Amino acid sequence: MTDPYADKKTRASTWFKTLRDDICAEFEAVERDAPDALYPGEPGKFVFEDWKRKQEDGNALDLGGGTGGMLRGRVFEKCGVHISVVKGEFTPEMQARQPGADKDPRFWAAGISLIGHMKNPHMPCVHMNTRYIVTTQDWFGGGGDLTPTQAKDRDPNSPDAQHFHSVYKDACEAHGRDYEAYKKWCDEYFHLHHRDEPRGIGGIFYDRVNTGDWEADFAFTQDVGRAFLSAYPPIARQRMHQPWTDADREEQLIQRGRYVEFNLLYDRGTTFGLKTGGNVKTILSSMPPVVRWP
Amino acid sequence: MTDPYADKKTRASTWFKTLRDDICAEFEAVERDAPDALYPGEPGKFVFEDWKRKQEDGNALDLGGGTGGMLRGRVFEKCGVHISVVKGEFTPEMQARQPGADKDPRFWAAGISLIGHMKNPHMPCVHMNTRYIVTTQDWFGGGGDLTPTQAKDRDPNSPDAQHFHSVYKDACEAHGRDYEAYKKWCDEYFHLHHRDEPRGIGGIFYDRVNTGDWEADFAFTQDVGRAFLSAYPPIARQRMHQPWTDADREEQLIQRGRYVEFNLLYDRGTTFGLKTGGNVKTILSSMPPVVRWP
Repeated sequence: MTDPYADKKTRASTWFKTLRDDICAEFEAVERDAPDALYPGEPGKFVFEDWKRKQEDGNALDLGGGTGGMLRGRVFEKCGVHISVVKGEFTPEMQARQPGADKDPRFWAAGISLIGHMKNPHMPCVHMNTRYIVTTQDWFGGGGDLTPTQAKDRDPNSPDAQHFHSVYKDACEAHGRDYEAYKKWCDEYFHLHHRDEPRGIGGIFYDRVNTGDWEADFAFTQDVGRAFLSAYPPIARQRMHQPWTDADREEQLIQRGRYVEFNLLYDRGTTFGLKTGGNVKTILSSMPPVVRWP
Repeated sequence: MTDPYADKKTRASTWFKTLRDDICAEFEAVERDAPDALYPGEPGKFVFEDWKRKQEDGNALDLGGGTGGMLRGRVFEKCGVHISVVKGEFTPEMQARQPGADKDPRFWAAGISLIGHMKNPHMPCVHMNTRYIVTTQDWFGGGGDLTPTQAKDRDPNSPDAQHFHSVYKDACEAHGRDYEAYKKWCDEYFHLHHRDEPRGIGGIFYDRVNTGDWEADFAFTQDVGRAFLSAYPPIARQRMHQPWTDADREEQLIQRGRYVEFNLLYDRGTTFGLKTGGNVKTILSSMPPVVRWP
């Protein structure tokens, strides 16, 4: 039987790869353009590694895989940009929670995810992902959010926060999407309940987007991806010139602990992936390179 | 109505405080006895801080509290020794899981818990706790386990592992308790399932111990507490003379990441405490002071 989603799957996964290439090229340019006085050493480059998704029972079914890209540079202390195209069957528990999976457990999913931990404490930590999922239904999800490591920058009125939000707001509104709802979703999701603290200054987060117009939804998700390139690199390029003190660095390392707490206690992708045989190396590549709990 | 457990509660909580005092005194002695050449600066001392358990609805019921003790020293990079006596009512979810709580949600619990992260990578990280819980039933729980930070020491046949286990084995056997069962329980509990790795070289772990002879059970739990003083400080006093390299330290910081992963993904005390309004500062005092995920 012909897969009615075949063309959409190809176009979506090709796009995620294109976006990955564009982002990695821009991040490597930032590495090169950074001032040598603050960042001694050679500009870093991404190292890519393919991985195959393994089946629990060891059978040789093709379950897809992905490419993990890691930049350990002089500006990007540790940055992962990953793409994947996976398929398989949901567990009964997942079937019950995923649209269109109740009668047929098969799924297909492609996406890009990114996390950047910066050496300079004045450069915010950043996260984004977009994805396309197919069961007997299909939908897009994604978003981007910013986590300044210094308390004075974790203010919704800070210039970085204003810029970051304005770019995603424009992307949403250009497609008639509800920016305020996606902003709220982001704030609610990236919240450390045990500390009653937001993880950062937010951004947007959306899931299960299917308006019935696939071309429009795909165009929106593409623009959310492109928006990242307007949202983060300009902040990075401006902030990378700002010198920092040991106290700034200490504050950064402590704030990174909140990131770890969020990812291991609450993040659905992380906890689900780790508890169901996902690729540990890729999943935990989001962990900060150095963290302090003093 | 007279509390039939009143005397037992007093004796148990008094014991946990005595044990806390003995352990803290010995750890401070280790700080003083450490060689100045390897550990510059003044020997560290414990700083104690009382906390009160807060009720979710803000009412002023006495729900108990505890005393957190932290040693940030030259040998003990970060060590928490905490005692607490708390009471209250279990949530319906907890009621269903705790012996004797199905018809009456009230509980009382006292205990001591300890975690030590050492500066010297050749000194293993250590954890212990013992506790006494009362619902309409009562029981003891506890144990101790060792986490060497260097791969070569995470061998069940290493001298440290042999010594640590032999002390707890003696303590169990002196009271006719099943050391092998408690050792197995420890190995099963302190396991990083996502990596299929043990956290360390184990020790013992037991819960819901009520043989019907309270005096015998209390004497056993007291001896498990005393065993800690024979199990860990001799290892610390021997290992503290061993110099280390930057590579040893790097291995230690990475291994500490496994500790964080375990505590936030699996540890019942940590995840339960954080998700039910426990004392965040005390619960997360077990987090290592510096961690690396390279």
